[in-house]
Amino acid sequence: MSDNPVTIHRLSTADTDFERRLDDLLAWEGVSNDDVQSRVAAILEDVKHRGDAAVIEATRRFDRLEASAMEELCLSPHRLEAAFKGLPDEQRTALENAAERIRRYHERQKPTSWQYEELDGTVLGQKVTPLDRAGIYVPGGKAAYPSSVLMNAIPAQVAGVGEIVMVVPTPDGVVNELVLAAAHLAGVDHVFTIGGAQAVAALAYGTESVPRVDKIVGPGNIYVATAKRAVFGQVGIDMIAGPSEILVVSDGQTDPEWLAMDLFSQAEHDEDAQAILVSWDGEHLDAVQAAIERLLPTLDREAIVRASLSRRGALIQCADEDEALALINRIAPEHLELSVAEPERLVSEVRHAGAIFMGRYTAEALGDYCAGPNHVLPTSGTARFSSPLGVYDFQKRSSLIHCSAEGASTLGRTASVLARGESLTAHARSAEYRIRD
Amino acid sequence: MSDNPVTIHRLSTADTDFERRLDDLLAWEGVSNDDVQSRVAAILEDVKHRGDAAVIEATRRFDRLEASAMEELCLSPHRLEAAFKGLPDEQRTALENAAERIRRYHERQKPTSWQYEELDGTVLGQKVTPLDRAGIYVPGGKAAYPSSVLMNAIPAQVAGVGEIVMVVPTPDGVVNELVLAAAHLAGVDHVFTIGGAQAVAALAYGTESVPRVDKIVGPGNIYVATAKRAVFGQVGIDMIAGPSEILVVSDGQTDPEWLAMDLFSQAEHDEDAQAILVSWDGEHLDAVQAAIERLLPTLDREAIVRASLSRRGALIQCADEDEALALINRIAPEHLELSVAEPERLVSEVRHAGAIFMGRYTAEALGDYCAGPNHVLPTSGTARFSSPLGVYDFQKRSSLIHCSAEGASTLGRTASVLARGESLTAHARSAEYRIRD
Repeated sequence: MSDNPVTIHRLSTADTDFERRLDDLLAWEGVSNDDVQSRVAAILEDVKHRGDAAVIEATRRFDRLEASAMEELCLSPHRLEAAFKGLPDEQRTALENAAERIRRYHERQKPTSWQYEELDGTVLGQKVTPLDRAGIYVPGGKAAYPSSVLMNAIPAQVAGVGEIVMVVPTPDGVVNELVLAAAHLAGVDHVFTIGGAQAVAALAYGTESVPRVDKIVGPGNIYVATAKRAVFGQVGIDMIAGPSEILVVSDGQTDPEWLAMDLFSQAEHDEDAQAILVSWDGEHLDAVQAAIERLLPTLDREAIVRASLSRRGALIQCADEDEALALINRIAPEHLELSVAEPERLVSEVRHAGAIFMGRYTAEALGDYCAGPNHVLPTSGTARFSSPLGVYDFQKRSSLIHCSAEGASTLGRTASVLARGESLTAHARSAEYRIRD
Repeated sequence: MSDNPVTIHRLSTADTDFERRLDDLLAWEGVSNDDVQSRVAAILEDVKHRGDAAVIEATRRFDRLEASAMEELCLSPHRLEAAFKGLPDEQRTALENAAERIRRYHERQKPTSWQYEELDGTVLGQKVTPLDRAGIYVPGGKAAYPSSVLMNAIPAQVAGVGEIVMVVPTPDGVVNELVLAAAHLAGVDHVFTIGGAQAVAALAYGTESVPRVDKIVGPGNIYVATAKRAVFGQVGIDMIAGPSEILVVSDGQTDPEWLAMDLFSQAEHDEDAQAILVSWDGEHLDAVQAAIERLLPTLDREAIVRASLSRRGALIQCADEDEALALINRIAPEHLELSVAEPERLVSEVRHAGAIFMGRYTAEALGDYCAGPNHVLPTSGTARFSSPLGVYDFQKRSSLIHCSAEGASTLGRTASVLARGESLTAHARSAEYRIRD
């Protein structure tokens, strides 16, 4: 570390070393090492073979939580409801408002089954069905977020998932009432106060007490991420999440203090979080930098924000809107805030972004909690190929093929030629049985 | 092995050890061992750091293919077109018919972007965009299937993917003309004759010659599967495929020889493939078993089929239709053939299956080649949580949030309460800036 750490990096696309500096800034290796891998593998094996007993032992060891039976690590629906009813009115109403808006948005994502009939009577289609059971991992301790419970569970509920199982570690037995209240509101069926690789294993393989689920979603530390990667295939998983990030593009007309606070709201998550502002207005970037310096001492989480901004934050000056667009599509940000007069025009050119916050009023924080769209978003450039968590993550499709006698005869001729071309003659003969003379 | 190996297992749901026997039959561990893991990790690192040179070396070593530069391992569009034009008329027409039907079906899968405006002027939506670049892994050697090229590349093409890059190993330089012709037809942009973990690495990281892709799809051996799992996160991947399987349900009225051949068409893939027939008609199962014995000696791939049926095949007698349905939903088969009079009624109760072939005329082989739906399907029970390969695998979504001044003010109040409940006060203050007095 330097003696005078920078508050935040300044870059310009005109710098000769811009590409290298941007690469360094964006670089993120979330890969776990061999030690983590083998420790996780041992826990997975243990839970697979010894079930509840292994989970109880691991919970004692890692979370310092004593239990003689799994039922002591299980919270009843009554307990969740009590947490909800016990909230201060203001919090309960805010949670209800958020849940209602999230539910309404996700209702629009529901795909429908479809089919069509061809001239010869053959019917083709696709049938959409929900998962039987979904597992939701909610981090415990300092990052126990009720909003994440809503964002993970409500899409599952809207999808029609039969049973939603939530796990949340409670190190030293510390329970977060807001998290339990959110679970009640989001229709979670079971809550187990377990975490780490042992919770992932319990959900993936099932134990005497924890029902085996079909898919596990939700973020966690490196042990949780490594365990999810290992059980992928046995169960479905969502993306392996990296640190959260935002890219803000400003046209120079947004209040610098608003932008500073928007960057802080990302940086306060943790020291690896990334907040980047891009503008073609250099004086505006100066003004935002001044606002950052001015407001930093007023933050509750000042130390975290300073660490995050100095390590991974940046103010980037570019030549114009086109260069800003090129940066957006190269970075493929998790959160993209377009703090400009006419965001629609830019949006049509954006190819990769998890969520796009349009205009000066749309702070990312509004979307994090209650605008409606999901806050579980692809990180570290994975918006190039993945999507926000959604109803579609809790459903799957089955192809439907119903050939008429005539259709089978026609298709049989084509299939026969292709199967013989692949030397799969039993395929060919199976098709040929359906050909009419 | 017994001295008199069974041709195919007979099970009955009435057997006291039915559950255990079924579990044994279905068990499949596709997990690679530590040795494979470390060999794959070394190849990935090598390609990441040395690019083309590492790929060329690995190709020489594993595929016995000499090249002094990557361009010798690259096939031009002209070469693909020549392969297509050089096909016998019958094969070219069959390939064109199949491609046309596959394209038509997948066109129906295209999701559309949507948005809606709320009363206060806030706009919420979801924007759908294609991947920039997709990588398609096509196995070489004995399992080089042109139909798989169509099934993997056409959905990418329909999705609007900018560039489709195909890799196909050609051990000892043996090229499959049908595979190249299919690549031409399916709109593949680049073909590299490389395979294994080195090809996965080249696609995931990019080299001087191989463009980095956003997602890698397609089946491969254990090295390919291990490499895909390792690069997941860096790029998207499709499911890790296990051996192919079919579950046929017959009401006893389908010609036993048809059913025997349908089972063979699955079993001929490889010795790990699984073919299971379920019926509530015991005499019918006897008749199918007799047909199997009778037809087996007539098969080109008799040895593979015998091995597959005796190891993993089964004829299962159940009590009635309800028990058959319970078996379907428990097994969650890749292919489900409902060889019954009224398949529609059963289909409405099927919760998990990759593709459903309805009625006596709909042999799986018709769907494998040309009915239209995809033949890349979730195996080993993963139809519980995953879907056939589709257009949706080559697109991703971005959430859109555009708050009006009034909307931001309302949402700001809710977000502020929830953010303070999570002790994320920069989030709260960012939201509060947008609240109007």
